[in-house]
Amino acid sequence: MIKPIQFLDSGVLLLDQTRLPGEEVYVDIKDHLAMAEAIKSMVVRGAPAIGVAAAGGISLGAAAIRADSFEAFYSELEEICAIMGNTRPTAVNLFWAIERMKRVAAENRSLEVDKIKKLLEAEARRMLEEDIQHNKDMGAFGQGFISDGDTVLTHCNAGALATAGFGTALGVIRAAHLKGKRVKVIADETRPFLQGARLTAWELDTDGIQVTVISDNMAGYCMSKGMVNLVLVGADRIAANGDVANKIGTYPLALLAKEHGLPFYVAAPTSTLDLSTTTGDDIPIEERDRTEITHFQGQLVTPEGVDVFNPAFDVTPNHLVHAIITERGVAKAPYEKSLQKISIEDRKEATTKSN
Amino acid sequence: MIKPIQFLDSGVLLLDQTRLPGEEVYVDIKDHLAMAEAIKSMVVRGAPAIGVAAAGGISLGAAAIRADSFEAFYSELEEICAIMGNTRPTAVNLFWAIERMKRVAAENRSLEVDKIKKLLEAEARRMLEEDIQHNKDMGAFGQGFISDGDTVLTHCNAGALATAGFGTALGVIRAAHLKGKRVKVIADETRPFLQGARLTAWELDTDGIQVTVISDNMAGYCMSKGMVNLVLVGADRIAANGDVANKIGTYPLALLAKEHGLPFYVAAPTSTLDLSTTTGDDIPIEERDRTEITHFQGQLVTPEGVDVFNPAFDVTPNHLVHAIITERGVAKAPYEKSLQKISIEDRKEATTKSN
Repeated sequence: MIKPIQFLDSGVLLLDQTRLPGEEVYVDIKDHLAMAEAIKSMVVRGAPAIGVAAAGGISLGAAAIRADSFEAFYSELEEICAIMGNTRPTAVNLFWAIERMKRVAAENRSLEVDKIKKLLEAEARRMLEEDIQHNKDMGAFGQGFISDGDTVLTHCNAGALATAGFGTALGVIRAAHLKGKRVKVIADETRPFLQGARLTAWELDTDGIQVTVISDNMAGYCMSKGMVNLVLVGADRIAANGDVANKIGTYPLALLAKEHGLPFYVAAPTSTLDLSTTTGDDIPIEERDRTEITHFQGQLVTPEGVDVFNPAFDVTPNHLVHAIITERGVAKAPYEKSLQKISIEDRKEATTKSN
Repeated sequence: MIKPIQFLDSGVLLLDQTRLPGEEVYVDIKDHLAMAEAIKSMVVRGAPAIGVAAAGGISLGAAAIRADSFEAFYSELEEICAIMGNTRPTAVNLFWAIERMKRVAAENRSLEVDKIKKLLEAEARRMLEEDIQHNKDMGAFGQGFISDGDTVLTHCNAGALATAGFGTALGVIRAAHLKGKRVKVIADETRPFLQGARLTAWELDTDGIQVTVISDNMAGYCMSKGMVNLVLVGADRIAANGDVANKIGTYPLALLAKEHGLPFYVAAPTSTLDLSTTTGDDIPIEERDRTEITHFQGQLVTPEGVDVFNPAFDVTPNHLVHAIITERGVAKAPYEKSLQKISIEDRKEATTKSN
C-alpha cells in the first residue's frame, strides 16, 4: 500500500510528492518548521493528508517544547499551531487537525507536560489510522455509484497520496475495483502542478487500474464523445450549503457534467466539512507562486515578467453536486440538512469516544 | 509588425513558433516537403497561417517541377497538394488554400508551364496580403464588441502568429486597442502546446496590450469572480450550422460563458467556413502525438508508458456562439442562413476579381 505519511520514532517520514513519478524519495521530517515547509511546498498535499501531516508536525513541535507548566507549554503549542495554520489556507482539514490537537492538550491540562506530549503523539497517530479507515468506509459507501465497465473522470489527486492512504475519490474507485468491477479512469493532468499526470496516473498504474491522462481542457471533448460515465473528485473544504472548494478546474467539470447529463460526485471525509462557513463565497482561496505557471519543470515558458494569476482552488456550487460521499454515509441535496445531520452524528461519536 | 510568414525570392521564411518566446528564430523553407514538415511540427500553426504557408509550399513545389506539358505539370502539382493536405486534418483553410492554388493552375492550362509557376507564386503572395487585410477588416467589424475597460478571455493563439499578420481574435483586440480603448486580456496557457502562454502572451506583450496568463482550468474561476467581460477566440473550421471547431478547450469556455451570462465570439476569415460540412459532428478532429502530454521540453512528466489521449480540437455547438466575426461582416444565428449569405457574397467577389 502507498504510504505518503509514516510516523516513525525518529520523526515523520513523507513521500516527496514533488518528485513523483520520476523518483520515489522520502523526506524525514524532524520538527514542525520542516513540516510547515513541506506542506507549503507540496511535498505533502491533499486536504486529508495535510491534516494528518500537520498533526504530526504539531506533535514533533510539542515534543521539543521545554516548559514545565501547562501554561508555558500551551502558549508555545499555540505558536506552533499558528505556524502550521499559515501554510495553506483553503484545506479546512488543516484547521480541523490543529483544533483537535489543541483540544487534546487543553482537555489534559491537569497532566504532566511529558504525558501531554505523549497524548499528542498518540492523537496524531490515531488521526492517521482513522483517516485510512474513513477512506475505506467512504469507498464502501461510494463504490455503488460505479457500475461495471464505467469510465470515471477525475481531477487532481484525491488518492492514497492525498490522504494517509487509500484515498477519497480514488478510494471509491479502488473499492469498486476491489469488488471486481471493471473501471477505467480518465485523469485530468491538473495544471499547474500536474497532480493528475504525475500522482493519480502513478498510483492507479501501481494498483493496476487502467488510467488515461488528458490535459484539463480535453474533459469537455471526452464527455461530448460519450467517453465518460461519471465525474468523481475530492474536496478541500465543503461549506454548510454543500458548495465544494476543490482543486482549480473542478467547477468547469461539474458544469460540463451537468450539460452532458453525467453525475458529479464528491468524496471527502467529514473533516473536510466546514459548517461554520455558510457558502462557498466565504471560503478563502489560496493563490500560489507565479512560477508554477511561468515555469514548467524549472524552464521558463512565458515571456519574461508577464502577468500571471494562479488561484489554487475553485468553488463548485451545490446545485451541480449529485452527492457527497463521506465516511459516515452519502449526503444529498438539500445539503444544509444532510451535512448538518452527518456532522452531528460525527460530533456524537467523537464525544462518545472521548468519554 | 510580427511577420510569421514572409515570401522571399529564395523561399518562404517562417518564424519558428515552437521556439517562442525564448528564441526568435527564422526557418528558411526551400521546398514543399520542408513546408509540410513545418506545418506538421507546428513551426507554423493557426488555421489562416497554415493556409498561407501551404500555398507558399505549393508554390515552391511547383517551381521545382520539371515538366513541359500542362498534364505532366498538373499531375505533379496534385501530388504536392496531396502531401500538403496530409499535414493537419482539422483546419479547413489548408484545403481551401490547396483548392485555390489548383484552380489557378487549372484555369490557366493554356499558358506555358513557367508562366503558370509565376501565377502560382503570385497567388500565394496575394493570399498572404489578403489574409492581413481580412484580419484588419475583421478587426474593424469586431472591435465594436469590446468596450473601453473590458477584459477579454482568449484561448490558444488566434493572433498575428496564427495568420499572415494582425490576427483574427487578437486582431479584433488589436483594433479595439488601436481605437484607444483600454482592453485587458486573460490568456489561457493552452495545454498541451502552450500557444497561449508562449505565443499570445508574447505578441500582446510586444504590442503593449496588458495580458495575464492563467492555466486553462482557471477560466471558470475568473468568470465566477467577475474578472471577464467577454470571450473571444479564433476557429479552425466552421460548419454550415455555425458549429465551431477550435483548439481543444474552447467548448468548455463557451459553456462557462453562457453560465455566467458572458458573450462568446468567434473571429475567423471566410476561408475557415466549410459549408460542405453540415454540423460539427462531421469535422475531423486531429489527434496529436502522446509525447505532447507525457513530456515537457523532452522531460518525462507522467509515469512511463501511461495511456494518453490527445485530441487537438473540440467543437463548440452553434447555440453557444453569440456571433462569428468575418472579414465580410458579422454572422449571427440562425447560422445556416447568415453563413450561407456571407459565403455567397464571398464567391461573388471572387468571381468579380477573377474576371
